[in-house]
Amino acid sequence: MPVNLTQPVAAQLLPVAGVSLGIAAANIKRENRKDLLVMQLCEGARVAGVFTRNRFCAAPVIVAREYLAQAAVAGSDGIRALLVNTGNANAGTGEQGMQDTRTTCAALAGLLGCKAAQILPFSTGVIMEPLPVAKIGSGLPAAVANMRADNWYDAANAIMTTDIVAKAISRQVSIDGVLVTITGIAKGSGMIHPNMATMLGYIATDAAIAQPLLQTMVREASDRSFNCITVDGDTSTNDALMLIATGKSPLPEVKSADNKACKALQSAITEVAIHLAQAIVRDGEGATKFITVRIEGGKDEAECKQIGYAIAHSPLVKTAFFASDPNLGRILAAIGYAGVDDLDVAALKLYLDEVLVAEHGGRATSYREEDGQRVMQQSDITIRVVLDRGAANATLWTCDFSYDYVKINASYRS
Amino acid sequence: MPVNLTQPVAAQLLPVAGVSLGIAAANIKRENRKDLLVMQLCEGARVAGVFTRNRFCAAPVIVAREYLAQAAVAGSDGIRALLVNTGNANAGTGEQGMQDTRTTCAALAGLLGCKAAQILPFSTGVIMEPLPVAKIGSGLPAAVANMRADNWYDAANAIMTTDIVAKAISRQVSIDGVLVTITGIAKGSGMIHPNMATMLGYIATDAAIAQPLLQTMVREASDRSFNCITVDGDTSTNDALMLIATGKSPLPEVKSADNKACKALQSAITEVAIHLAQAIVRDGEGATKFITVRIEGGKDEAECKQIGYAIAHSPLVKTAFFASDPNLGRILAAIGYAGVDDLDVAALKLYLDEVLVAEHGGRATSYREEDGQRVMQQSDITIRVVLDRGAANATLWTCDFSYDYVKINASYRS
Repeated sequence: MPVNLTQPVAAQLLPVAGVSLGIAAANIKRENRKDLLVMQLCEGARVAGVFTRNRFCAAPVIVAREYLAQAAVAGSDGIRALLVNTGNANAGTGEQGMQDTRTTCAALAGLLGCKAAQILPFSTGVIMEPLPVAKIGSGLPAAVANMRADNWYDAANAIMTTDIVAKAISRQVSIDGVLVTITGIAKGSGMIHPNMATMLGYIATDAAIAQPLLQTMVREASDRSFNCITVDGDTSTNDALMLIATGKSPLPEVKSADNKACKALQSAITEVAIHLAQAIVRDGEGATKFITVRIEGGKDEAECKQIGYAIAHSPLVKTAFFASDPNLGRILAAIGYAGVDDLDVAALKLYLDEVLVAEHGGRATSYREEDGQRVMQQSDITIRVVLDRGAANATLWTCDFSYDYVKINASYRS
Repeated sequence: MPVNLTQPVAAQLLPVAGVSLGIAAANIKRENRKDLLVMQLCEGARVAGVFTRNRFCAAPVIVAREYLAQAAVAGSDGIRALLVNTGNANAGTGEQGMQDTRTTCAALAGLLGCKAAQILPFSTGVIMEPLPVAKIGSGLPAAVANMRADNWYDAANAIMTTDIVAKAISRQVSIDGVLVTITGIAKGSGMIHPNMATMLGYIATDAAIAQPLLQTMVREASDRSFNCITVDGDTSTNDALMLIATGKSPLPEVKSADNKACKALQSAITEVAIHLAQAIVRDGEGATKFITVRIEGGKDEAECKQIGYAIAHSPLVKTAFFASDPNLGRILAAIGYAGVDDLDVAALKLYLDEVLVAEHGGRATSYREEDGQRVMQQSDITIRVVLDRGAANATLWTCDFSYDYVKINASYRS
């Protein structure tokens, strides 16, 4: 079961003026499962996004990048809809996969009365199987007919794959007396790694944001959220985080990163992104613990992340947390092999929540096994490493590694 | 159960003139378990070794490196014994751990009539617990009393931790009409990664080999064997591979890497090391499959290894192999995120044994699911990736990821 995470409450998800969402069952992988989402955007809406850095990126990633780049040019036709399918990733599908993606975009464009290049495609699911284009085409009219502004809850459910609960949240922030709304949804629970994950995220606001600034803002939000999580260290072929600004709010267009309005918006958008990213870890495949890895006092953020990921990726550390076993030497071992060559292990301190576990290269004299045991039994735990060699910090989030992770991933296709 | 690997046959393990082995139960972690090994070497024997690169390396690693460096200086007292204990790694134990290691070396030196610095210490087991020095001291007389030249089988069993079967092998090679013997033992089954692993390996030959050459030879052997395996990507604090040359054989001292004798010796020593390294993977914690990952046609060996390890470390790939599920897109995804930025994924070919799975960026037209399924059901499988961008190759060995891996590592201390 997800760690301290429950299904979102539909009534708490606020519509974003300028966004309508329609859901349908296209029978892509299973019969009668809602597996298709269309998000229609008002004219003038702007979209920016970040994508997986996997070299084997999926066809929809290549096409979405291409269409997004075209739409970002001043004077171009803007993006008018996002099309998401689950059940098939359309990855590792070669040239046919590219054609299939364009075909589905064209089909939706026909229904919405726009061009194919105004549709951004997204797919998630099994890799290396041909995209069932005909099924998706058959499902589209129902999705379009279903479009409503208050469909965020159903949309969050429709994009799930191995997720147990849907991920969605809304925030409102008052800027210069105008209440701005931000609503986001995401999916993902395995193959989660920085530089994205099998995760899809969509965050929309009714604020008006200039195109180049929107790109900066989505990058900033992802760097503080989706790029700080890991479940299993695998980076997916299909990841994408999209930030949509419809401009329907009366707030004047936000153009500069320096002003107060932008900072308030960025802060709220990042908060939404962090909630969604943490929700993905809390719903990590087989997760029973949510672990915050905080590295402090490093020379730079890069080495803090390097050490943090060595801990967060270690199967030995993750299984010890699953067992609630304070076998904390495994954390020291992970710090030691993280690849920071000049690290002075005698200078660092390791804490489990507030409990000092190790210092001077070994177990702290004040450490008592029962204190470690007590913290290990919690469902939310912070591993804190103080390096004492600089002023940089990094925070990552991960989960433990359980029987169920193996079970889920050994039977994903069946 | 280990994958196509059985307990070695005691009678097939050949004594190496100049080496005696004694075993005893020191009750370090469990009562009446043989957990202590003393390997006594004849006067004039030479030793060289490679150790973990983990920054949090254990006290015995630091001390063994120091004693070995002293002994390698011409005219110094040579190494006269190796002392190995299981049940406790003496890692993450700070200054006290260093003292404890030196104390056990001194205790054995007293029994053997040599100096403490002529004893190389090795420990494996739980991290961050104080070494039970008194127990080890009490066990040493029995180990010394037990010393025999034909004790290799018992020695291989004594150094096991979570290993299911012992790892040991002998080879003989005729060089210039002289039959030279090489016998090696190793332990390890989890925390296995390049730059060593929780693995200890000891290979002895009766050949005489000059000290600087011996160091080159052990490095070469480990680069082709222990540095090509991974079980879970964790690098231990305690790893060590030692190569011992007693010089008891009538073969003249081997001094140069160029001559025929050295090449024949190196080849046999590397073969022994590869057998031991592969045995560790075959006995990988919870392993049900032995997987060879072969990357061909890379620009250099480094990128071949980088891609190979991305595949070999992927929990998604490893659980798919456990399930015998030809969900081979996961291999493509791992290749894609390996970090080779200019990789042309459309140019590579992926094979499972002889079955062509993927080419032109997607599934091969000739590929049939039943062919993939057939190979996946084998216990020995080769993943072969042909990059088609150069002449470099690399071969790694790994295993799958099963329920039992989690079970073993969630309960290691209990």
